Amino acid sequence: MAWFQREVILARRSRGFHLVTREIIAAVPEAGRFSVGLAHLFIRHTSAALALNENADPTVRADMEAYFNRLAPERAPYFTHTLEGPDDMPAHLKAVLLGSSLTIPIRDGRLALGTWQGIYLCEHRDDGGPRSIIVTLSGEADD
Amino acid sequence: MAWFQREVILARRSRGFHLVTREIIAAVPEAGRFSVGLAHLFIRHTSAALALNENADPTVRADMEAYFNRLAPERAPYFTHTLEGPDDMPAHLKAVLLGSSLTIPIRDGRLALGTWQGIYLCEHRDDGGPRSIIVTLSGEADD
Amino acid sequence: MAWFQREVILARRSRGFHLVTREIIAAVPEAGRFSVGLAHLFIRHTSAALALNENADPTVRADMEAYFNRLAPERAPYFTHTLEGPDDMPAHLKAVLLGSSLTIPIRDGRLALGTWQGIYLCEHRDDGGPRSIIVTLSGEADD
Repeated sequence: MAWFQREVILARRSRGFHLVTREIIAAVPEAGRFSVGLAHLFIRHTSAALALNENADPTVRADMEAYFNRLAPERAPYFTHTLEGPDDMPAHLKAVLLGSSLTIPIRDGRLALGTWQGIYLCEHRDDGGPRSIIVTLSGEADD
Repeated sequence: MAWFQREVILARRSRGFHLVTREIIAAVPEAGRFSVGLAHLFIRHTSAALALNENADPTVRADMEAYFNRLAPERAPYFTHTLEGPDDMPAHLKAVLLGSSLTIPIRDGRLALGTWQGIYLCEHRDDGGPRSIIVTLSGEADD
Repeated sequence: MAWFQREVILARRSRGFHLVTREIIAAVPEAGRFSVGLAHLFIRHTSAALALNENADPTVRADMEAYFNRLAPERAPYFTHTLEGPDDMPAHLKAVLLGSSLTIPIRDGRLALGTWQGIYLCEHRDDGGPRSIIVTLSGEADD
C-alpha cells in the first residue's frame, strides 16, 4: 500500500477547454508503480474546473466552450457579484457545474481511461493564470 | 487494508436515466468484506454518465431525461461537432455536466447510500451499446 | 495507513448555498493525524448537494441560488414528478448537476483547499431539514 502526492502547476491557458492528459500523466510517472489504485486530481481554484471527455476531435472542445458561454452567460441582469469583471461570476457557475476534482482508476500502472477519454482543464477566466493541481495516488504499489 | 478492482459491463440500454443499483451491487459482492472504505465507480465513455438520485419513483428519471434534452438540445445552430449524429454533441455535454464517476462510502460491508439514493446510468446516445464500468473498492477488509 | 469514518449531521438550513467549511473541519479533528491522504464527503440525500467554490464574498452564493433557480425552474410544464411540491423536482435536478460528494486532498494534517475554496452545502428544498454527511478519511496517519 502506498500514497503519493504532488502539486502540478499547469501553465496559463486561454479561456476554453484544453486537453491536458499527457501533461498530467508525464508529471506523475510514479503512477507506473501502482498495480491497482486511484489517481485523484484536484484543482485549487474556484473559476476553473477539471472534466473528462472526448480526446480526439477539437471541435468537441470548441462546442463545449460555446455551450457553456450560453449556459452561464456574462452580464446576467440579476448578478450581484460583478466587481471582478463580467467573466468572473459565470466562471464560478461553470466551475460548480463541472467540478473541482476527478478520480480515475489505475490498473497495471496506467490510468484506466476509456479509448476516447481525455482530461480537460476547463479555464473559465479570460486570464486565469497558472493553475495548481494536486495529484494524489493511492493503491498497491511495487517496492 | 485491501484493494479490489473489477470491470462490470452494463448491457445496452435505451437513451434515458436508468436505475442500476442492484446490478452494480450484485457485481461486486467483495464489498461485503469491507468494514469501512470507499467504492469508486468509473464509466469509460464520453457520451454516458453516472449519477446518484431518487430510487423509487420512475417519474423522476423520466423528468430528468426531459430536462436534460432541453438543457443540451440537439441541432444547436452553433455546434461544429456534428459528424456523429445529432445526439452526439448533446451527449458529450450531458456527460460533463453529470460526471464520469461516483465515490460512495462503504460501512459494515454495505454501500452507505441514503434511503432514497440509487445509482443511475445516464445513457445519452440513442444507441450507446454496452457500457464499461470499472469498480474499485478500497478500505479495511476482513481476511 | 488508516481509515476513519464519521457521520456528521448538518442542522437545517434555508434553501440556498451555505458555507460549511469550518463546521465540517471541526467535526473531524482526526484529519490532523494524516500526513497525506484524502477526505471524502458524501451527502445521503437526493435534493441537496455538496460543492466547492468561493469562500469570501456572500454575493457569489446569492448569485448561485438565483442562477440555479433559473436553470432548473419550478413548475416546468413537462414535469410529471409533482406530488412532493414545486421545489422537489428542481431540487433533484440541481442535485445531479452539482453532485453528491467531494474528495479533497489532505496534506500535513489539513485539507489542501485553495485560498478561495470553501465547502458549500447546497440546500435545494424549501424545508430540507437536517442533512446527513458521511466523512471518510484515508491516508498515512501518525500513530
